[in-house]
Amino acid sequence: MADSKNPQECLIGVDLGGTKILAGVFDSQLQCLGRNKMSTKAERGADAVIERIARCVEEAIDECDLSRKQVRGVGVGTPGSVDPESGRVIFAANLHWEDVPLRKELERRLDMPVFVENDCNSSILGVYETELKAKPQHVIGLFLGTGIGGGLILNGKLYAGFRGTAGEVGHMVLEVGGPKCTCGNRGCFEALASRTAIFRKIQTAVKAGQKTVLTDLLGDDLNDMRSGDLLKAIRRGDKFVEKVVEEAAEYTGIAVANLINLFNPQVVVLGGGIIDALEDEMMAIIVETARDYAFPGSAKGVDIIATEVGDDAGILGAAVLVRKALLDAK
Amino acid sequence: MADSKNPQECLIGVDLGGTKILAGVFDSQLQCLGRNKMSTKAERGADAVIERIARCVEEAIDECDLSRKQVRGVGVGTPGSVDPESGRVIFAANLHWEDVPLRKELERRLDMPVFVENDCNSSILGVYETELKAKPQHVIGLFLGTGIGGGLILNGKLYAGFRGTAGEVGHMVLEVGGPKCTCGNRGCFEALASRTAIFRKIQTAVKAGQKTVLTDLLGDDLNDMRSGDLLKAIRRGDKFVEKVVEEAAEYTGIAVANLINLFNPQVVVLGGGIIDALEDEMMAIIVETARDYAFPGSAKGVDIIATEVGDDAGILGAAVLVRKALLDAK
Repeated sequence: MADSKNPQECLIGVDLGGTKILAGVFDSQLQCLGRNKMSTKAERGADAVIERIARCVEEAIDECDLSRKQVRGVGVGTPGSVDPESGRVIFAANLHWEDVPLRKELERRLDMPVFVENDCNSSILGVYETELKAKPQHVIGLFLGTGIGGGLILNGKLYAGFRGTAGEVGHMVLEVGGPKCTCGNRGCFEALASRTAIFRKIQTAVKAGQKTVLTDLLGDDLNDMRSGDLLKAIRRGDKFVEKVVEEAAEYTGIAVANLINLFNPQVVVLGGGIIDALEDEMMAIIVETARDYAFPGSAKGVDIIATEVGDDAGILGAAVLVRKALLDAK
Repeated sequence: MADSKNPQECLIGVDLGGTKILAGVFDSQLQCLGRNKMSTKAERGADAVIERIARCVEEAIDECDLSRKQVRGVGVGTPGSVDPESGRVIFAANLHWEDVPLRKELERRLDMPVFVENDCNSSILGVYETELKAKPQHVIGLFLGTGIGGGLILNGKLYAGFRGTAGEVGHMVLEVGGPKCTCGNRGCFEALASRTAIFRKIQTAVKAGQKTVLTDLLGDDLNDMRSGDLLKAIRRGDKFVEKVVEEAAEYTGIAVANLINLFNPQVVVLGGGIIDALEDEMMAIIVETARDYAFPGSAKGVDIIATEVGDDAGILGAAVLVRKALLDAK
């Protein structure tokens, strides 16, 4: 039960991913009060996943000793393209969703106001509103994890384009004829610098006889390799892993330069699991390469930074969706 | 002298380039009444160039049998980054200009209102307001000539970014480690598909013994090669030139796909001397490659077209600057 003398209000932010659902409970100052995690089980279909999101949210509230009545709203950052007005997920490849009425179905189950946005859009919005205090007018967010996604703040607002799919930075071709990407093309940024790309490069080299500390840590087949394992290997002096990570950082720097040339932003923010784990190893190379490749004049005064909120960008951004919607409604 | 019973008002659009100045006289319906051309003589310095722009404008007015009093204003599309508010050219590499008060100096010489914008920005604005009737909300313009430039209409307005340099599509890296670009990097779009890139490829091959109709047309050193010569060679069955132009079209298609993935626009408009001369040879390949490379969903419903205004985009866009400024002032 809430303290009736001080009934604390809270916002829920949900980071819906292909493998896990993360729910964070935030106070009105966007301090995180607690969080809860569940597997997504996307193979069970949209209805089952929405049911799991509802359970994940309810358990997060309960875990924080709060009541449902204290919740002002639930924000959800989801992969894929979204119509934020209706809260429908138009298409999300890794969930196998097509035209799913996420907002409506979740509101029915939770009996709370729900707001839905693309996950990279809500993540950059969260970083923008909290870490950057909504000051710069033009900000590009780049999130490096299993895949690579982006979010754009232009003229102080989320920019989503004609059908809400803008910011697909992961499929920007950087190397015509380069490595195969999951999208079917070759040489996409995602095929060069995502966790998937880095792991594939390592696994291919190991199969070809490359020695690495990683096989001592994880066994010869490198099962369950995580971003943090790369850091461990580098710290133990593994020059091979260091080189692979450096190459990913160089490609990321070139991608950042392309985005600076195209958008002339004030700030480029990098986040996601790869940056979170390897910030010290990658950021200096990313910044140097970006400044080297960006057109003279375009990079002047542009900040290239790693987000301080780390992996919390997802749930924080989703909570910011709720706060923005409530403020806009006033 | 103007007909006093029907004093026609006119707008002047100036397309300032590294080698030539073009001035167009337009009526209030943006029909072109006449034009005048002068060499830029950039090596004589900014003052001399501004003096030449003024002369070019005055002769264009005189040629149309109009008087100075009938001119509502002069728009100038200039290379480089511009502060449209003050009308200063902050930096223009091919003119060797740094912080030149173009608007102020030209207004002093002409005694007419002057409006200044980056040339690609004013070109896309011209196409947007006339050809596209300002209907789509998000439009990307790509201009392929000696170099490659871009202009962005986002949410119905010119987007210029933090310091007015947004839209530098020519220096988007498409092929890490590719051919050297004038900017010092390798593999920029401009180093793969501009007139300069196409000509260099042809000249290198000819030096290495490649046979082509072009040497019959222009002599062995291929001096004074122009975009139109490529068309002539292709029409005469020159498979080598056809292949080089096709490759440039493929790179352009990949660049268009990258821009569709990033901006999710409604329309991508291509223009400039290369497209003007080789539209029939290039556009089908550009469209096919772009649709092939764009992320599923992002390219849906996006029009990829060549502008109908051709090489007039520069002077027309500059005239539109004047019309917009006068309408905004009402």
